[in-house]
Amino acid sequence: MSRKKTIEVCFTPALLDLYEIENRNVVLVDILRATSAICTAFSWGVKEIIPVGNVEEARKCKEKGMIVAGEKDGIVLDFADFGNSPFNFMNDDIKNTSIAYCTTNGTKAIQKAAKAHRLLIGSYLNFSALKSFLLNDTHDVLIFCSGWKNKFNLEDTLFAGALTEQLLKEEPFSTVCDSAVASVDLWNLAQPDVMTYLEKAAHRHRLRNLGLDDVIEFCHTFDKTNIIPVLSGNKIIAFSES
Amino acid sequence: MSRKKTIEVCFTPALLDLYEIENRNVVLVDILRATSAICTAFSWGVKEIIPVGNVEEARKCKEKGMIVAGEKDGIVLDFADFGNSPFNFMNDDIKNTSIAYCTTNGTKAIQKAAKAHRLLIGSYLNFSALKSFLLNDTHDVLIFCSGWKNKFNLEDTLFAGALTEQLLKEEPFSTVCDSAVASVDLWNLAQPDVMTYLEKAAHRHRLRNLGLDDVIEFCHTFDKTNIIPVLSGNKIIAFSES
Repeated sequence: MSRKKTIEVCFTPALLDLYEIENRNVVLVDILRATSAICTAFSWGVKEIIPVGNVEEARKCKEKGMIVAGEKDGIVLDFADFGNSPFNFMNDDIKNTSIAYCTTNGTKAIQKAAKAHRLLIGSYLNFSALKSFLLNDTHDVLIFCSGWKNKFNLEDTLFAGALTEQLLKEEPFSTVCDSAVASVDLWNLAQPDVMTYLEKAAHRHRLRNLGLDDVIEFCHTFDKTNIIPVLSGNKIIAFSES
Repeated sequence: MSRKKTIEVCFTPALLDLYEIENRNVVLVDILRATSAICTAFSWGVKEIIPVGNVEEARKCKEKGMIVAGEKDGIVLDFADFGNSPFNFMNDDIKNTSIAYCTTNGTKAIQKAAKAHRLLIGSYLNFSALKSFLLNDTHDVLIFCSGWKNKFNLEDTLFAGALTEQLLKEEPFSTVCDSAVASVDLWNLAQPDVMTYLEKAAHRHRLRNLGLDDVIEFCHTFDKTNIIPVLSGNKIIAFSES
C-alpha cells in the first residue's frame, strides 16, 4: 500500500511560514473574490494572469499597455480596466489576453506561496477538477486561505473544509491538523445553506457595504470549469499535465 | 445607553500583532495546560508566578533557589521541581511561594501580550469569575489562544467559543470577528460531550503519547476557583479590584 498523503489547512498568510510547502501541492483560496475571479477568467479563455502585489506595480503594467484588473480594499483602482469581480471576466474580449491582476489579499498570498511544489488556484468553480488532481497526484496538500488582512475568515475556511472533507473520504489522505478538523466541522455546520451561514461572515458585510455582494452566490457555485490555474514563474496559466 | 463592547478572538500568538490590545482586557488561554495550571496554583494559595520564556532563564531561577515548574515539548526539565500538570500545583507546599514557570507555548504568549490593558489568565477553572469581571468592566475583550507552536488548536478555540458565547448573550457585547463566530460554532458543535469532541484534537494525542492526558478532564471542569490571575509587571498575581 502506498503511504497516506497528508492534508493541512493554513488559515492566513501570516501563518504560512509554519508549514512546509516546497514539496506540496498548495491550493490558494480567496473565495471572495480573487481565486473565484481567476478561475472565471480562465474559463473565459484568458491566456495568462500576472499577479501584482501593489498599486504601483499595477500602474506600471497599465503604462506598458496591459489590461489591468485591480482593487484596493474593494474599490476599483482608478487607472484599472476593471475590478476584481468574477463578472468582469465574463467577457469575450479577454480571450487569449494577458491580464495584470492586483488584489488586497490574493496577490500577496500568491507571492508568499510561490515556492510551493505547485501553487494551484482553488475555488468552488473548479472544485471537482481540483479534487481529482489532488487525489491522483502523489504530493501532500496544503490548503492556503488568503483570509482578510492576515486574519482568519469564514468563507475561505468553509471552502477548505469542503475540499478537506472530500479528500479525507478517499483512501490516500489523512490529517492531524486541528485547522483541517475545524474547517470540515464548520463546512458541515454551514449545510445545507452556506449562503445563510455566511450572513455571519464579516467580509460579506464589507462587500455589501460596497455594493459588491452580488457575486457571493456565484462564487459558491460548484464546477463551472475543469481548468486548474497554476503559478508558473511569475504568471498564472492553465495547468496541463503534459 | 452605553456603547457596545467588542469581543474578538486571536487564534495564535503569530496573529497577535493584528489586534489592538493596549486598551483591552486580554484573556490568555492555554487550556492544555499552562493557564489551567496557573489557575490551579492560585486556588492552592501560591503568592505569585514568574513566567520565564526559555530553559536557560528557568535554570537561573533554580540556581537562585526558586521553585521551578517547567517543561519543554511536554517533558519536565531535568532541573525543575515539577512539570506543568495542574495536579503538580495541588500541594500545600506551594502556599505563599513564588514559582518560576516555563512552558512551551504559554509563557511566550504571556510575554507577547504583556502590553495589554490587563492580561488575565483564563481557563474553565475560573470561568464564571472571569465572565463576571469582563461583563462589569468597561474595556473591550480579546481572547488570546496560545495555540500549538503558533498554529491554531482546537482546545483553546473551544474555550474561546464558550466564553464568547456567554459574553454575547449579555447586552453590552457584540462582535464582527470571524474567529469569534467560528469559535462559538465549534463550541456548540462540541456539546454535549467536549471530551469526545477533543478526541479529534492533535494536542490530546501528543499528551497521550507522553502519558500526560490524565489532566484533560480536570482542565475542562468549570469553576474550581474565583481567583483571576493577572500579569502585574513581570509577575502573575491574584487580581484584586482594589
